[in-house]
Amino acid sequence: MKSYYALIAAGGRGTRLWPLSRADMPKQLLPLIDDHSMFLTSIERIRPLFSPADIFVVTGAQYAEQLQAEAPDIPRENFIIEPYPKNTAPALALALSVIQQRDPDATVAILTADHHISQRDKFCAVLGAAWQLAQAGRIVTLGMAPSHPSTGFGYIQQGQSLGECRGFPVYMSRRFTEKPDIVRATHFLAAGEYSWNSGMFIWRVDRAMQDLERHQPGMYAMCAYLQSVSQSPDYQTKLRDIWETMPTLSIDFAIMEKADNIAVIPIDIGWSDVGTWASLYDILPQDNFGNCIKGKARESRVILDTRDTLVFSDRLAVTIGLEDVVVVDSGDVLLVCHKDRTEDVKQVVDYLRENGSNEYL
Amino acid sequence: MKSYYALIAAGGRGTRLWPLSRADMPKQLLPLIDDHSMFLTSIERIRPLFSPADIFVVTGAQYAEQLQAEAPDIPRENFIIEPYPKNTAPALALALSVIQQRDPDATVAILTADHHISQRDKFCAVLGAAWQLAQAGRIVTLGMAPSHPSTGFGYIQQGQSLGECRGFPVYMSRRFTEKPDIVRATHFLAAGEYSWNSGMFIWRVDRAMQDLERHQPGMYAMCAYLQSVSQSPDYQTKLRDIWETMPTLSIDFAIMEKADNIAVIPIDIGWSDVGTWASLYDILPQDNFGNCIKGKARESRVILDTRDTLVFSDRLAVTIGLEDVVVVDSGDVLLVCHKDRTEDVKQVVDYLRENGSNEYL
Repeated sequence: MKSYYALIAAGGRGTRLWPLSRADMPKQLLPLIDDHSMFLTSIERIRPLFSPADIFVVTGAQYAEQLQAEAPDIPRENFIIEPYPKNTAPALALALSVIQQRDPDATVAILTADHHISQRDKFCAVLGAAWQLAQAGRIVTLGMAPSHPSTGFGYIQQGQSLGECRGFPVYMSRRFTEKPDIVRATHFLAAGEYSWNSGMFIWRVDRAMQDLERHQPGMYAMCAYLQSVSQSPDYQTKLRDIWETMPTLSIDFAIMEKADNIAVIPIDIGWSDVGTWASLYDILPQDNFGNCIKGKARESRVILDTRDTLVFSDRLAVTIGLEDVVVVDSGDVLLVCHKDRTEDVKQVVDYLRENGSNEYL
Repeated sequence: MKSYYALIAAGGRGTRLWPLSRADMPKQLLPLIDDHSMFLTSIERIRPLFSPADIFVVTGAQYAEQLQAEAPDIPRENFIIEPYPKNTAPALALALSVIQQRDPDATVAILTADHHISQRDKFCAVLGAAWQLAQAGRIVTLGMAPSHPSTGFGYIQQGQSLGECRGFPVYMSRRFTEKPDIVRATHFLAAGEYSWNSGMFIWRVDRAMQDLERHQPGMYAMCAYLQSVSQSPDYQTKLRDIWETMPTLSIDFAIMEKADNIAVIPIDIGWSDVGTWASLYDILPQDNFGNCIKGKARESRVILDTRDTLVFSDRLAVTIGLEDVVVVDSGDVLLVCHKDRTEDVKQVVDYLRENGSNEYL
């Protein structure tokens, strides 16, 4: 596919996977599912479609070196570094404007560095279909088939059918909604025309910059300016100065909820955002009693009358009489959490930050 | 009280408090309840009644040095060392025969090194009454008021009343029973005339040696022989040789279940054997939600929506949504156990021993 690029957004932290994820070891660098980092797995997954030279990565300065070490065949200049985090919109706008300068005809698949996709072939196939649809100037989003009324994701409501593309049914997007409460989420699931917003978009870069100009003119102006000084010897200084005035916005809020002509391909590719310990548990292999033991404890463990429990530990882990518990034994922190409460790990991290206990974060 | 001695049995391991209790750090050396070791607390508790010179300790060779360091004012020669563990009967027989040689008129209160007693004054008072009763040649046992139908203790059934002694009601002991099943234990509790066998006996030493001669003549002969060679330069070698042929028996089985003329004083002194994590939890101070956090984690902990849970950890311990859980984070082992299942820690220790994982024991 001509001028097709992948842009991996790899600037997140994965706060709810604390205490394994830390400030200096974010989720995308962790080998949560197999022996590879989530980032490397995200790269491997799309190799049938993208050569290393066609893969871009946008991330924070503090993670760039580790990410480059994970995927040394991706050219160094394809790593686009945001000076510091400002949510997804500034990072993606910067990255898209850099890609546009390299190839004005580019079509870009914005993908994630720390999600799980079990059906790789289908994923690559739908990315191919999305490229074709994007040629007509549409923003193409991948809508994940919802398995339960999650309040943790935004939803995409589909509108009129656009027929099929390479075997995948395509719809106009009627609406992007933010994370709903449980009542609305249940309604969405019953209605059947909603899918989860996975944060994966396929765009022609010229269309992306037009959308940016229309909906976020200030951000567009800053990106255009940065394009004009991209060869300047003090580009980094200018970038840092510009970044100061960049608004902190998500791409959903900045563009997706406002743009028109968005298509959605609702699809089940075995996707998980691996956002919490409970969602990681759901995709890990389990023993006959629903237990999953990770870390060195796999070799030295004693699991007595325990069910549906997840343990991450490098020590001898002994569990007796537990059900639906998550145990994460990591460095200077020990977390023991009911599996239904793993969203609340974020509260703990917030609490520690507010109390100045940054050594644990 | 003339010729009254305390004999502290301090040779146990406290297996069910693993992984805090280890082969080289048994329960009686651990500061489980306050900042003192259980052993030191056991000594402090009886100081109103016994001067250091009147306190004897029987223990294993591997613990003697640490115990001596805990109570340096107890004379070194009052530490009686069993070459290796053979259950309680040989250890106590050896100790009693040593005490008899020092003072043939001795009365000995056999006490424990790793139990908890909340009502110290009452305990010292009943030990005084027991001394008086023992003068008449009776074995006096302290029967602990049962709070629930425990299957973890032996029981003493009381017979005819012997009236009162210093305000304490005294009975003949009708029967010693081994640990019952739950049906019998419930029956015992309903009957009202049973108390828990605490392992605390008060005896005139001449009477003790007579009982030994009658019920365990082989063991008696070996102790008499050891008395006769006590001044020999190769006493330790002879002791070790004799020890080989000593049977491995509990004092209950060897003597108490067979002897007659046993008196029992049923009493509530806030006693606990602190045998399991659950029984330790019961006597530790708890917060408003029934939680108890011990170790350095006390200062750095986050306890979210957690109830009736015990945590021992020197790291930042975070619990979310737990109820009735015991978490013990100790060295190279992490234990997470339902509070109703803490008896099963012994199974885990047995399993590790059988599998040659002695580095964890």
